[in-house]
Amino acid sequence: MSVVWLNGSLVDQSDARVSVADRGFTLADGLFETIKAVGSRPFWLAEHFARLKAGAAEIGLAIPFSEDRIFDAADRLLAGVASEAQSALRLTVTRGAAARGLWPKDAAQQQPTCVLTVAPSVVMPPQAFVVCRSTCRNERSPLSRIKSLGYGDNILARREAIDRGADDAIMLNTKGHVACATVGNIFFRVDGRWVTPPRDDGILAGLARKRFIAELGAAESSVTTDMIRRSDAGFVCNSLGFSLIKSIDGRDQDQADLPTQAVYSP
Amino acid sequence: MSVVWLNGSLVDQSDARVSVADRGFTLADGLFETIKAVGSRPFWLAEHFARLKAGAAEIGLAIPFSEDRIFDAADRLLAGVASEAQSALRLTVTRGAAARGLWPKDAAQQQPTCVLTVAPSVVMPPQAFVVCRSTCRNERSPLSRIKSLGYGDNILARREAIDRGADDAIMLNTKGHVACATVGNIFFRVDGRWVTPPRDDGILAGLARKRFIAELGAAESSVTTDMIRRSDAGFVCNSLGFSLIKSIDGRDQDQADLPTQAVYSP
Repeated sequence: MSVVWLNGSLVDQSDARVSVADRGFTLADGLFETIKAVGSRPFWLAEHFARLKAGAAEIGLAIPFSEDRIFDAADRLLAGVASEAQSALRLTVTRGAAARGLWPKDAAQQQPTCVLTVAPSVVMPPQAFVVCRSTCRNERSPLSRIKSLGYGDNILARREAIDRGADDAIMLNTKGHVACATVGNIFFRVDGRWVTPPRDDGILAGLARKRFIAELGAAESSVTTDMIRRSDAGFVCNSLGFSLIKSIDGRDQDQADLPTQAVYSP
Repeated sequence: MSVVWLNGSLVDQSDARVSVADRGFTLADGLFETIKAVGSRPFWLAEHFARLKAGAAEIGLAIPFSEDRIFDAADRLLAGVASEAQSALRLTVTRGAAARGLWPKDAAQQQPTCVLTVAPSVVMPPQAFVVCRSTCRNERSPLSRIKSLGYGDNILARREAIDRGADDAIMLNTKGHVACATVGNIFFRVDGRWVTPPRDDGILAGLARKRFIAELGAAESSVTTDMIRRSDAGFVCNSLGFSLIKSIDGRDQDQADLPTQAVYSP
């Protein structure tokens, strides 16, 4: 990650800086997308951009660059990447630098900040999960359904998992239903049928999730902690890849055979 | 706000920049405090620093500067300020720049970013409030009780208030109890007695709140929306100041006489 696209220009990583008054930095007032690429080819870029636009509309943020400009920026960042290498692009849009305060008079007129970065991405091995106890997903907030910069709860959940000797955490919502893992959607096989939490339970509607639902014929319905106990297999997925669930709270799960080639096609 | 204290040095505002890889910018992985100053005198600085340290312990973040260094930085930023001028200092601490991902192996070893800024602060007139419908405070998250950078829900609530012709919003929690306003604690006078939501209802335990509780003999107990309707007066407060409630959802309130001189003393 030595070059970064920042507000329309390619700059060296060490020069890629934003103002300390940027509302992304001061108040998490922004959104992002994480995009898989193999070699110089980004996956699902139009869908990512559409989702970003929908999220931006939800928080009243104008994206300062066209889809074409973003696509071009991705091309430029990926130009030197080896043909088989997997990368993660990250597109971040914030409301830009503004005066102090939650919503100063000029907040809506600021020039948004737009950043595209690229970094190597790795294939995830099966992971040990715990059910998160320390915090939860707030399904009553619209932010639970868009890719807001506010990842504090997910970080707490991940740190809890590590403290408890696991790799990652399953986050519940305020009703005690399963929402998601800390960086991906989650699927369980219960009584032979795949199921994944619905959007109303406080999840980002992932692009890989949509494809797995179609490929597996999975149901979108609320998942209780009792259903987790009854499940014999599961996995977590996001746009970059998937991870089988090795165990949940110390109970081993079967390693399901997943249609990952079909899902992760450009 | 022409000079900023950034990681131990005074720099010009236009040079006060952080990496686009700063976890404060990418994931809202940090905390802040807002501190009142009159002239060159900051208020309650030791208490702010203690609260910041407690919040940092909650999220496993080491504050990279001593209390003395922060106090000295505040002195330097406030050196040129006119003796009667009111300012707002903002102290921000993030987990610093790190590799991509929610919790990369080196996340806990990063050098935190520490920023202190100063800006003019104004006295707030009485404000019209609405009860927020679009989002809510998640009292089940520890982040609801510390001053995390994740202010997205509060921004949504404020924007809703403005859209509905008011100045600010009263945020409920997931149980439907009152939590706070978008940038301050809230007090109501109900049947002649002052009451403010308890910490468990998802609020930051404000330093002004503590003083108003003592001065008013206010009760810390859950506030229902029915109690809002029965209240005849109220106010919102934070470390910078207070604002009387002019109206709630269009219903006018009395303007209470508050012990603000006693509360806002250095």
